[in-house]
Amino acid sequence: MAKKDCKPAEYLSPVPAVMVSCEYEGVTDIVTLAWVGTVNSVPPLVTTSVRRNRFSHPLIEKSGEFVINLVDEKLAKAMDCCGMVSGADVDKWEKAGLTKEEAGVVGCPAIQESLIQLECKVREKYEYESHDAFIGEIVNVRIDESLLKEDGSVDWNGTKLVALNYPDRYFLLEAEQFAEMGFSLK
Amino acid sequence: MAKKDCKPAEYLSPVPAVMVSCEYEGVTDIVTLAWVGTVNSVPPLVTTSVRRNRFSHPLIEKSGEFVINLVDEKLAKAMDCCGMVSGADVDKWEKAGLTKEEAGVVGCPAIQESLIQLECKVREKYEYESHDAFIGEIVNVRIDESLLKEDGSVDWNGTKLVALNYPDRYFLLEAEQFAEMGFSLK
Repeated sequence: MAKKDCKPAEYLSPVPAVMVSCEYEGVTDIVTLAWVGTVNSVPPLVTTSVRRNRFSHPLIEKSGEFVINLVDEKLAKAMDCCGMVSGADVDKWEKAGLTKEEAGVVGCPAIQESLIQLECKVREKYEYESHDAFIGEIVNVRIDESLLKEDGSVDWNGTKLVALNYPDRYFLLEAEQFAEMGFSLK
Repeated sequence: MAKKDCKPAEYLSPVPAVMVSCEYEGVTDIVTLAWVGTVNSVPPLVTTSVRRNRFSHPLIEKSGEFVINLVDEKLAKAMDCCGMVSGADVDKWEKAGLTKEEAGVVGCPAIQESLIQLECKVREKYEYESHDAFIGEIVNVRIDESLLKEDGSVDWNGTKLVALNYPDRYFLLEAEQFAEMGFSLK
């Protein structure tokens, strides 16, 4: 297996492809992001990087809130659409055929069609060269009941979430889980 | 689609399941992580969260370097193994059947069996409640030639990368890409 040195770039893959909804003073938007990740477990913190020239940036910065809406196969087209147009030009809710849903704790709307909504409050902002990274604390999680088992855990089987591989390829997760953590010891 | 409020937790999914290799003063280790993500494009920066009591933590902190080794189906068992045992007790390279490979720029070894290695230098460290987040700048990328097309881009088809869905479920990506960014406009 010979390897080749390649120019440094954002090769980390797969990363989540999500839709982030936000609102400030009555203006709402949806931004498609893949530079998101978990950074802390207790409390659950996520990093959410947005270019400073994006329409959604000041909405998140000024309101201090946003919702990460997870994306499955059925929402892939709407997610892609929200990454291709700007909220400065169009109402993305209408353009992508998405429905505003009141969130439980934060003031901005969630996306009703998303099966899992992570409501976040901004705790910090780090300014990097091309992006600002908002650290959000997940303060509420709303999950579609169709995904929940009796014990309250999520059954992901059958839900094909969308991932991004560098630089611009969407892949779906397989419908059935591969294994559970710890399987190598059995 | 009725939704239920659930206790905040690290529901962001899918997230990458990767092996991070590191070394300090001749002691090497591999740590399996999923709290990793891209936070900036130019330069490419990744956040890499590690609990402070992990054996690998001081190796990364003191050396200021690490390698993110991407994980495909063939490496899933080794990756799981490296998350289940501690470098304080066993040599994970031997235990998981992995081979050290000299990196191009950083001083710690990469994992030869990994198809894509992201060599990182630590730029910052943020201390959160349960984890420290190391911000790594990707300073070199090594890609197995079997994945590279003539134009130098990666052909991910056929490479089933491993993702983690909350809290502990491994899913593979489908073998064939679902779409390219921008497909919704066509």
